[in-house]
Amino acid sequence: MTMTITRHDPTSILSNAVQHGDTVYLAGVVAKNLDQDVKGQTKQVLDEIDRLLAKCGSNKSKVLSATIWVTDIRNRAPMNEVWTAWVDAKNLPARACIEAKLADPRALVEIMVIAAK
Amino acid sequence: MTMTITRHDPTSILSNAVQHGDTVYLAGVVAKNLDQDVKGQTKQVLDEIDRLLAKCGSNKSKVLSATIWVTDIRNRAPMNEVWTAWVDAKNLPARACIEAKLADPRALVEIMVIAAK
Amino acid sequence: MTMTITRHDPTSILSNAVQHGDTVYLAGVVAKNLDQDVKGQTKQVLDEIDRLLAKCGSNKSKVLSATIWVTDIRNRAPMNEVWTAWVDAKNLPARACIEAKLADPRALVEIMVIAAK
Repeated sequence: MTMTITRHDPTSILSNAVQHGDTVYLAGVVAKNLDQDVKGQTKQVLDEIDRLLAKCGSNKSKVLSATIWVTDIRNRAPMNEVWTAWVDAKNLPARACIEAKLADPRALVEIMVIAAK
Repeated sequence: MTMTITRHDPTSILSNAVQHGDTVYLAGVVAKNLDQDVKGQTKQVLDEIDRLLAKCGSNKSKVLSATIWVTDIRNRAPMNEVWTAWVDAKNLPARACIEAKLADPRALVEIMVIAAK
Repeated sequence: MTMTITRHDPTSILSNAVQHGDTVYLAGVVAKNLDQDVKGQTKQVLDEIDRLLAKCGSNKSKVLSATIWVTDIRNRAPMNEVWTAWVDAKNLPARACIEAKLADPRALVEIMVIAAK
């Protein structure tokens, strides 16, 4: 049994999406415009996740698990507002949200998801 | 090939357990009674993980990987005492334990696992 | 449908590698010689990941996703140098790199990967 691996949108250090059989692993996504506040950045992150999932034949109703890093845990509440508006309420993923410093000091939120195809 | 997705115990923002074919993704679990010390909280977390795994037709002997966040890395040792008493010693999961601030400032430990069904 | 689970290199608290069907979960790996700088430690970590993947019939061209914790996010750049020399440039994994305190205060980097077999 060997399932096919397909990789999308490589940078110099990572692939932004990797399909392994029926499972999709996305890279941790941060906003491109880091001048926005946590709500604006979260919206950008979730738009990019939508785009990457679509590339893999998946979508937000098939997200299995999400790890969310916020640089200040007090930003969890505004991040959650945007998250709640985005998720498919009938198909909510497992999730953890913790505080961590991120690569770019202006990034306020990073989200990494595993999804089904 | 499309594997069934089954979601359990949804809150407003997440499912506490998501089955995808033969793989189970749990949400990050924190204790309900946050007045307890790290050992008491770890016990509560592992009890809840037992409950969620059972809902998915799994159990602690089938945990594949665990991510453990402690809010003070010095609490790793007492957390490990409770962890060691809980795990199936013949079927130990892969694991990482790192320090991170959590959503509720009284929470001392959060554990997120991936298991087989 | 039940896929076989095989566990490798157990310690008292974890297995360093767990195979579940076609998917391999490694434990978070830190360097053994913690007197080295972040580049030396990253090299040790990736050597150990190579060893564990080989035990599971996998290799670095099949890494699906990696979570990298550095204890000082400013060490991301030198860690990336070693990472870039190691990865299979045609088969890059999904990845997230965040800052976190680790169990041993001398450890500068910890990497946990999911791979295909």
